[in-house]
Amino acid sequence: MEVFYDMAITFYYASGSTFAWYVWFVLEHKQLSYDMKVFSFTGDDMKTPEYLAINPRGKVPVLIDEDLVLWESSAIVEYLEEHYPERPVLPGSSRSRATARRIVSEASCYLYPPLRGVMEQILWIRPDGDAAPAALDGYLQNLHRELVYFEGELSDDFFAGSLSIADFATYPLLALVNRLQERQPQHNMGSFIGPRLAAFMGRIEQLPYFTKTIPPHWKG
Amino acid sequence: MEVFYDMAITFYYASGSTFAWYVWFVLEHKQLSYDMKVFSFTGDDMKTPEYLAINPRGKVPVLIDEDLVLWESSAIVEYLEEHYPERPVLPGSSRSRATARRIVSEASCYLYPPLRGVMEQILWIRPDGDAAPAALDGYLQNLHRELVYFEGELSDDFFAGSLSIADFATYPLLALVNRLQERQPQHNMGSFIGPRLAAFMGRIEQLPYFTKTIPPHWKG
Repeated sequence: MEVFYDMAITFYYASGSTFAWYVWFVLEHKQLSYDMKVFSFTGDDMKTPEYLAINPRGKVPVLIDEDLVLWESSAIVEYLEEHYPERPVLPGSSRSRATARRIVSEASCYLYPPLRGVMEQILWIRPDGDAAPAALDGYLQNLHRELVYFEGELSDDFFAGSLSIADFATYPLLALVNRLQERQPQHNMGSFIGPRLAAFMGRIEQLPYFTKTIPPHWKG
Repeated sequence: MEVFYDMAITFYYASGSTFAWYVWFVLEHKQLSYDMKVFSFTGDDMKTPEYLAINPRGKVPVLIDEDLVLWESSAIVEYLEEHYPERPVLPGSSRSRATARRIVSEASCYLYPPLRGVMEQILWIRPDGDAAPAALDGYLQNLHRELVYFEGELSDDFFAGSLSIADFATYPLLALVNRLQERQPQHNMGSFIGPRLAAFMGRIEQLPYFTKTIPPHWKG
């Protein structure tokens, strides 16, 4: 039975936000209808009074569904899974669900921070000059260690047995590593991604909705 | 109907870990039986080969239940709620559940980092001398801003309408602020906790299992 939902959902997104990409994957996987509002990171449009009235943190992703206004990607995805259970993004067994949620947390708490640190050092302007090279080395080391860990966590096609939130949360971070490799090849970050992670990325890139979710400014 | 569970659960804990305290609250709230292994932060007992074989990150909390070995507090708590649904720690409505999960994420991603930064600066030894005062000021400012935010999020007795994971995740961080205030009153951190948060803390401290969960080394 096919179920149609009204386009009640508004999705606030910014091109390049890995957490917003995560939510986008889930919306697409569930074949939900949504109205997508796209911010740029270059402007200050996430810090306007109008947007801060929606999300006081001035960040994306934000999901609005009827009278619910929700931020924090982990909360948004759990809400979508509960409220729109068709085409689930959590596995069936409680053990695999636990693994999926663990990987989501580890991607956010351990893999993202050094990746963000690298980005800040090599793509954004640092005001404090001399401190940067040592900091960059530390971030690169932590990023490498985490990618070795994630390589070891991938014993199957997907992180939690079947395609799940764990994969949707992790893929955008891996894609960002490869993008940084393209733009700053001297750091050799692409070599941090092992063969299992590389094959996993290929599987995600075969999903029918994958191309649609590529950050718009990466396509330019 | 009363349901009895076998003591299948092992809970790895360290005195003073706010994330382990969060899980302890949930185990106690659900009246589960568990075997608790207590680590100290002073020794290296979380970095032994034996423990790293359980959790490669060498951190607490860890929950073992039958053949499931799980880390990351958010994943542990969702698992406990799914597997032991009696005495729920998530509200009934999907809207309130979403709020509860959002607050848990914000406590971990925004409130904890500056609090940890303050702890590192004032309780632990910093090797890099001059950098510390400016860093401490930054952490204190961010901590203050976050506590103002959390004060504003508390429009009712509890963060998500009824007692939930949001409260269990947030309380340990507030208690740590007060403990730092006692030990280093010159930073005036206690004043960052507004009247609603203070009243909220009093409500948590009235829970029948509260005293049991106070970090053992805080009682000494």
